[in-house]
Amino acid sequence: MATSIDLNADVGESFGPYSIGSDAELMRSITSANVAAGFHGGDPGVIRSTIRMALAHGVAVGAHPGFADLAGFGRREMHLAVQELEDLVLYQIAAVAGVAAAEGGRLHHVKAHGALYNMAARDDRLAGAIVRAMVAVDRSLVLYGPPGSCLLDAARAEGLTFAVEGFVDRSYEPDGRLTPRTVSGAVIHEPLAVVSRALRMVRQREVVAKDGSVLPLDLDTLCIHSDTPGADVLAAAVRAAFEQDGVQLAPMVCRARAGQ
Amino acid sequence: MATSIDLNADVGESFGPYSIGSDAELMRSITSANVAAGFHGGDPGVIRSTIRMALAHGVAVGAHPGFADLAGFGRREMHLAVQELEDLVLYQIAAVAGVAAAEGGRLHHVKAHGALYNMAARDDRLAGAIVRAMVAVDRSLVLYGPPGSCLLDAARAEGLTFAVEGFVDRSYEPDGRLTPRTVSGAVIHEPLAVVSRALRMVRQREVVAKDGSVLPLDLDTLCIHSDTPGADVLAAAVRAAFEQDGVQLAPMVCRARAGQ
Amino acid sequence: MATSIDLNADVGESFGPYSIGSDAELMRSITSANVAAGFHGGDPGVIRSTIRMALAHGVAVGAHPGFADLAGFGRREMHLAVQELEDLVLYQIAAVAGVAAAEGGRLHHVKAHGALYNMAARDDRLAGAIVRAMVAVDRSLVLYGPPGSCLLDAARAEGLTFAVEGFVDRSYEPDGRLTPRTVSGAVIHEPLAVVSRALRMVRQREVVAKDGSVLPLDLDTLCIHSDTPGADVLAAAVRAAFEQDGVQLAPMVCRARAGQ
Amino acid sequence: MATSIDLNADVGESFGPYSIGSDAELMRSITSANVAAGFHGGDPGVIRSTIRMALAHGVAVGAHPGFADLAGFGRREMHLAVQELEDLVLYQIAAVAGVAAAEGGRLHHVKAHGALYNMAARDDRLAGAIVRAMVAVDRSLVLYGPPGSCLLDAARAEGLTFAVEGFVDRSYEPDGRLTPRTVSGAVIHEPLAVVSRALRMVRQREVVAKDGSVLPLDLDTLCIHSDTPGADVLAAAVRAAFEQDGVQLAPMVCRARAGQ
Repeated sequence: MATSIDLNADVGESFGPYSIGSDAELMRSITSANVAAGFHGGDPGVIRSTIRMALAHGVAVGAHPGFADLAGFGRREMHLAVQELEDLVLYQIAAVAGVAAAEGGRLHHVKAHGALYNMAARDDRLAGAIVRAMVAVDRSLVLYGPPGSCLLDAARAEGLTFAVEGFVDRSYEPDGRLTPRTVSGAVIHEPLAVVSRALRMVRQREVVAKDGSVLPLDLDTLCIHSDTPGADVLAAAVRAAFEQDGVQLAPMVCRARAGQ
Repeated sequence: MATSIDLNADVGESFGPYSIGSDAELMRSITSANVAAGFHGGDPGVIRSTIRMALAHGVAVGAHPGFADLAGFGRREMHLAVQELEDLVLYQIAAVAGVAAAEGGRLHHVKAHGALYNMAARDDRLAGAIVRAMVAVDRSLVLYGPPGSCLLDAARAEGLTFAVEGFVDRSYEPDGRLTPRTVSGAVIHEPLAVVSRALRMVRQREVVAKDGSVLPLDLDTLCIHSDTPGADVLAAAVRAAFEQDGVQLAPMVCRARAGQ
Repeated sequence: MATSIDLNADVGESFGPYSIGSDAELMRSITSANVAAGFHGGDPGVIRSTIRMALAHGVAVGAHPGFADLAGFGRREMHLAVQELEDLVLYQIAAVAGVAAAEGGRLHHVKAHGALYNMAARDDRLAGAIVRAMVAVDRSLVLYGPPGSCLLDAARAEGLTFAVEGFVDRSYEPDGRLTPRTVSGAVIHEPLAVVSRALRMVRQREVVAKDGSVLPLDLDTLCIHSDTPGADVLAAAVRAAFEQDGVQLAPMVCRARAGQ
Repeated sequence: MATSIDLNADVGESFGPYSIGSDAELMRSITSANVAAGFHGGDPGVIRSTIRMALAHGVAVGAHPGFADLAGFGRREMHLAVQELEDLVLYQIAAVAGVAAAEGGRLHHVKAHGALYNMAARDDRLAGAIVRAMVAVDRSLVLYGPPGSCLLDAARAEGLTFAVEGFVDRSYEPDGRLTPRTVSGAVIHEPLAVVSRALRMVRQREVVAKDGSVLPLDLDTLCIHSDTPGADVLAAAVRAAFEQDGVQLAPMVCRARAGQ
C-alpha cells in the first residue's frame, strides 16, 4: 500500500469587508479544508463560497469551530462551562455541515481552532464536549488533533476516527510538543526546510526536534498555516514534493465509512 | 375531514444572561415553534434547549432567521444584497436544522423574523432569497408567511408548501393588511376577544376588519405573539377553545411529504 | 466625624430588547452606580438613560468595564494581552465618561466587572492595565475593588484613590476571601441577616466569617448585587437601617479632589 | 489670504486580526483623520494606536461613527429610531474623544460613515440626531458632510461649524450629487486626473461634471478614499501638487474656537 497523507489548512476566515488568507490558491494544493464557522472568523457568505471552492477542487470540507471572539480571532483562552462549549461547537458544526450539504457536499471532519484546539488538547472535559457535539451530528466525522492529546483519547473513547496532525513549519520539542511561538526558531520559514521536514515526517515517520534528537511521529494529516505569508506557495511546494516522491495525497477516510 | 389549525409562536429568543418570553409554558399549547437562530436572538445553548423542549412536547420545530442585529432584536430594517441575505438565511436554517437533527428531530418549517418577515412579504427579491435558501437545505420545509405576500408567491413558484399565517391578537385593515402597531387598537389584549376571533378565523374562515367589514381569510396557522405579557395564558385559552370546539390542532403537513 | 459608607450597585446591564435588573428602584437607595459600558452588557441607549437616572438621583456615576463577552455577561475568564486589556478598559471608561459629561455629570469611579474584577484582583499585570487606563483618562477617578488585592496595590502605586469594597450578601472565609458561589451558604438571602451584617461591617468594621471567627474589615463601599431578585428591596432596607443608625451615606471622595 | 484646504481620510478601520487600509502611510499626507469608532470597524486597540499616529503627525483627530454592522462595514442601510441613532453616535463620539484626550489630543471633528453619512445627508431627522450628539459632547466640534445636505442645514441650525466635503476620485452629476458607484466611470482611478481635479476644486472652486458642464463647488475638505488600492500614493500626489501650487494644507478651524 502506497504511503498516503492529508494536507489541511484553515480557510474561510475572512469576515465581511475583511479579507484574510489566500484560500483560492491554497485549494489547489490541500486535500482537506477547515472552514471557519462564523464565530472566531468567517461569515455566512464567506463560509458558503469557501465550501463551494473546496468542493469544486475535490477538497474535503471540515468545520473549524472556535470561541465567539472575532476581535481575538479565537486565539485568546476563554473559560466556558463544559455544556456551553458543547452547544457552541454543536451549533458551529451544524451550520457548516448544513451549508456543505446545501452545496451538494458532506461534512468530512472537525478541527477545533486556536485557543480551543490547545485547551481541548490538554483538558479531557473540553475534549469530551467537542466529541459529544460531533457524535450528535454524525458519527462518521473525523476529528483532527495533535498526537498524545485529550482530543485523541476522547475521540477513541467514542469510536470516532481521529486524524493525528503535524505541523510542517513548526519546531518540535523533544517531548513531542510544539516549541512555543514565543521562542525564537519556533516557526520555520525556509521553504526547502519545510519541504524536507514534510517528506521526512511522512516517509520516515519522524521529525528532528529542536535539540537534534529524532522524534517518532505517526501522522495522518499535515497542517499548512494559511496565515503565514506565502502559505499558498509553501503548500504548492509541499504538494509537488509529495507527488514527485510518490506519496499519495488524500483526506483521511473515516474508519466507520470505510468499513461500510 | 375535521377542521385543523396550527398554533405557532416565536421561541428561543433569550440570549446569554438575558431571558425573554415564557417558552416552557407556551410549549404546552402551541403546535409549531419558530426557534430564533442566533442572529436577532437566541444563542447555541438556548437554541438547543428550546428544540429539546419542543421535541419533548411534540411541537414541530421551525427555524426563525432574522437580521444580524441583536441590539435591535431584528426589528430594524437592514438593506442587504440579495445574495448576502440568501447566505445569511441559509446559515441560520442550516444551524437550527442541524441542532434539531442532533436532538433526534427534523426541521419542519421556516418563518422569517421581524423586519425580515415584513420586508420579504413585500419584496420578491428578498422572498426569493429566503426560498432559495430553504430549497438548498430541504424541499420539504414549509414556509410561513402572510396571505397575498411575495413570500407566498416565491414559495409556490418553487413548489414549497406555504402556510398562510394569521395573527389572533392583531386588528386587520379592510384590505387584509395588519393595522400598524402605531395605530391605536392595533393590538387586541382582551383574552375573550382574542379567543373569539381565533375561533371565527378557523371556523368561518373570516375576520372582522377594523371598519367592521368582514374579511375572508383562509389560514393554515395562527401566531401567538410570545413577547406579549400573558402570552402563555392566551395560548392556553386559544388551545382550550379549539379543543372544546372540535378543531384539530396540528402543524401543517408538507404537501411533498404528505404525498410520499 | 460621623461614620460614612457608600452603597454601590451594578446597573445599566440591559441590552437592546433584553431587560435585566431593577435600576430605577435601586437608584433610590444607592449612592454610587457602576454603569455597564456596552461590552459585557449595556448599549448606548441604556447607558445614557441609566446615567441620566443616576444624575437625577444624585448618585455618583462610575464606569463598569468588562470583557467583550455579552453571551457570557463578562463572567467567563478571557485571557487578553495586557495592552489589549488596557485599551479595552480605556475605551469603555472613555465612552461612559463622555456620555456622563454629555448629560452634565462627571465620571466618579471605575469598577471592573465579573471575571475581569476577579482576575485583576489577583494579577498585578491586569490590575496595572486597569489603573493605567484610568490614569490616562482622569487621575481623580476612584477605583473600587476588594481589600488586599492587586487592584488596591496598583491604585496606590499610581496615587489613585481606592475604595475598599465589601459584599453585604456574601459569606466570607476566615482569610478574608469570599466563599465561592459553588459552596452552599455562599450567598446570604435573608434580608434581616444582610442588614445586620451591613451594620456590623460599617459600625464595628468587622464581619463574622463562615467558621464563626470575627474578621476585621475596613470598608469604604458596600455592593448590593443588582441581579439578585429583590435587590431593590434589600438596598432600601440596608439604606433605611443606616439612616436610622446615623450612618452617613455618600460616595467616596477622591483624595486628590478633596485636597483641592 | 492664501487658499487653504483640508485633506481627510477614513482610518482606523482594521479590526482584531483583520487589517484594512494603509493608515501609517496616509498619515504623512492628510491633515485630518476620521477614526472609526468600533461599530462598523475599528477596535479599542486600533482606535488608540491610530489616534496616537495621527497626533504624532499633527493630523486632526475626528470621530467616524457608523452603524453597528461590522459584517456590512456600516455600508448597509439600517433604520433606527431617531433617539437610538443619537445615542449610538453620542457613545461613539464620546469613546473616540476620550481616547484622544487620554493620548493628549482633543477631538476636532465628526464625520458619519458609509450608509449613515448618505442617509443623514438626505434625512433631516437623522442629521439632527448626529448634530445633537455632537452638541452634547462639545460645541466646537466640526461636522464634515456634503454640500447642500441635511447635515449642513442641521449643523448651521445649531451653530456648529460645517466643513463642506468633496471627493477627489469620484465623478459628479450636473446637479452636484456623486455619480452612483454602480454607474461606469463613477470612480476616477487615474492619478493625474485625480490630482488635476483636486487642484481645480481648490483653485477654481469648481468641478467638471459627468456631462462636461462646469459645476461650482465651494469646499473646505477633500476626502481621499482610504480603501482604494494605492490610496496612500494618491494622497501623497495630491498633497505634493497642493504644496507646489502654494495651497495651504490645514484642517478647518472651528469658528467658535477661532473667535475665542
